[in-house]
Amino acid sequence: MATSLNLPHVVPHDRQVLAQRLQHVLDHKTKPLGALGQLEQLALQIGLILGSEQPRLHQPQMVVFAADHGVAAKGVSAYPSDVTWQMVENFLAGGAAVSVLARQHGVALTVVDAGVAKDIAPRPGLVANKIAYGTEDVSQGPAMTVAQCEAALQAGAEVIRSLPGNAVLFGEMGIGNTSSAALLMSRLTDTPLHLCVGRGTGLDEAGLQRKLAVLEQALARNVDTPSPLHALAALGGFEIAMMCGAMIEAAAQDRLLVIDGFISSSAALVACAMQPAVRQRCVFAHQSDESGHARMLAHLQAKPLLQLGLRLGEGSGAALAWPLLESACAILRDMASFESAGVSQAT
Amino acid sequence: MATSLNLPHVVPHDRQVLAQRLQHVLDHKTKPLGALGQLEQLALQIGLILGSEQPRLHQPQMVVFAADHGVAAKGVSAYPSDVTWQMVENFLAGGAAVSVLARQHGVALTVVDAGVAKDIAPRPGLVANKIAYGTEDVSQGPAMTVAQCEAALQAGAEVIRSLPGNAVLFGEMGIGNTSSAALLMSRLTDTPLHLCVGRGTGLDEAGLQRKLAVLEQALARNVDTPSPLHALAALGGFEIAMMCGAMIEAAAQDRLLVIDGFISSSAALVACAMQPAVRQRCVFAHQSDESGHARMLAHLQAKPLLQLGLRLGEGSGAALAWPLLESACAILRDMASFESAGVSQAT
Repeated sequence: MATSLNLPHVVPHDRQVLAQRLQHVLDHKTKPLGALGQLEQLALQIGLILGSEQPRLHQPQMVVFAADHGVAAKGVSAYPSDVTWQMVENFLAGGAAVSVLARQHGVALTVVDAGVAKDIAPRPGLVANKIAYGTEDVSQGPAMTVAQCEAALQAGAEVIRSLPGNAVLFGEMGIGNTSSAALLMSRLTDTPLHLCVGRGTGLDEAGLQRKLAVLEQALARNVDTPSPLHALAALGGFEIAMMCGAMIEAAAQDRLLVIDGFISSSAALVACAMQPAVRQRCVFAHQSDESGHARMLAHLQAKPLLQLGLRLGEGSGAALAWPLLESACAILRDMASFESAGVSQAT
Repeated sequence: MATSLNLPHVVPHDRQVLAQRLQHVLDHKTKPLGALGQLEQLALQIGLILGSEQPRLHQPQMVVFAADHGVAAKGVSAYPSDVTWQMVENFLAGGAAVSVLARQHGVALTVVDAGVAKDIAPRPGLVANKIAYGTEDVSQGPAMTVAQCEAALQAGAEVIRSLPGNAVLFGEMGIGNTSSAALLMSRLTDTPLHLCVGRGTGLDEAGLQRKLAVLEQALARNVDTPSPLHALAALGGFEIAMMCGAMIEAAAQDRLLVIDGFISSSAALVACAMQPAVRQRCVFAHQSDESGHARMLAHLQAKPLLQLGLRLGEGSGAALAWPLLESACAILRDMASFESAGVSQAT
């Protein structure tokens, strides 16, 4: 990693005593052993992240990072780049899916302009961190310079430092960004590109083939990526890089990281490649319909909470999964034990 | 069906015009077509059930039907029958999983004593509808008489009539009731018993084989079930029968039915066999880890919302899925359209 980069170190948790205590608590709740399935594993994980047998989530923050992609001009998306700034307006006006779902669950929403190709008028809820008016076309060379990438990572960390709470939900917007996510996945997990590339917002078969050809060229033009940082700079997007920095900062602060879909997972992939202990703090909200996501989750050894065939991004899946995290904490805090409720145990 | 039974007729919905309108609304929200996956299908279904393009769920009711099973004496469960009344006390005291989860989501909780083998002291939140102190041992003959079954169905319908709101979440408690559910499934779907019988609250391999042998005998002793009502009487439980009546009443009132796990689904299976239009009003909350549930859901052509490896019952899965139903309504009501938000459509 370049020496100028000043991101916190994420210390690996080694909370074996707490893990045993949490498992004991779960095993003595009034239910058959393990009968709440994945919710129990989630409760255990949240307890470990927050360092508590009675974890309580407070002031959850949905942060949506938005930026444009030079490669969008090559027709890799079903939508024009203008949709990026239009959706930023929609997020801020409260009309997008993530706006509606965050509101439903009392999750605060912050939109970060990481590099949208248009000036966005300042207003509450918008953080202006524009690195440039979109990345360069990755099919012709690096999407950004290493210096730009480092600036994005730092800015992402700053965003987290400015926000309260002990949980962050990571969303994104950027026409063309399934391309960046697929490129990062292919490079960092050594997976053939065609297994990483999907239809994004809804490409037809011809569009998918065009996207694949453009991205094959992008990989060929960006061969020299000796570190995750270099891969992120060459193949990423400003929203992905800034989200990655935010994830590292949030993890270093022992906040809970709620990862949304394919793009957010690609940022987590980079963050975990840079600092493996980030992984312990990640809850994967859902498995997207975007074709590479299942494989990416498998690489991250992640079992997502939801499988609803979502392919929207924005943080919508993270918002939908949020109540399950609250439920996991409530189970730990509020359920009776066999002893306290006077219920007989299994024979 | 016996003539003395007076359950409402559930009229099939044929709301094609509304379905088209709802699909149009969903397709013009600011997202790629279908990008919210199963949530969109859920929104469409809820809109159709409630007859509205802007559906709003109000005063949701969790109703937990509890009863005992004579066959429990044959060792078909990992827990003793006493756990049924003990858990009823736990529900009412607020310490059970379903109590905690219903409270989290502002869902009112009612516990119905449909036939618990112990007197339960009256108190708010408890409906005393005891048909008997548990069913007869189904491995020796019919679990209940047809008259008892009809009384249970009627009482279930009465419970719904006494409760407000437009959505009912169906939960249950009854040591031994995966046995009844498996028997009903086998008989009504013509599925070999071993594909219907699972480990319930946590039987080991020997326990599973014992349960299977007892239930094979139960099927052999209850061959003559010429109608779903007769099957329900011979093979069911008081909580399943009462839940079935409640489902029919709720469906007739065009309330939304949220079906929990294996036992609740078996009640829905009987209700749909009696009155097929019940099916339109059913949302299946989750796929349980109980081994027959996936097959039962497939028979009902149901795609559950959650797959979290739950096997607790009580209504816990229905409560966990509840926020997704609220989200589906919020998407329909509150998301902007491409036109209203000024967002460009796909090229």
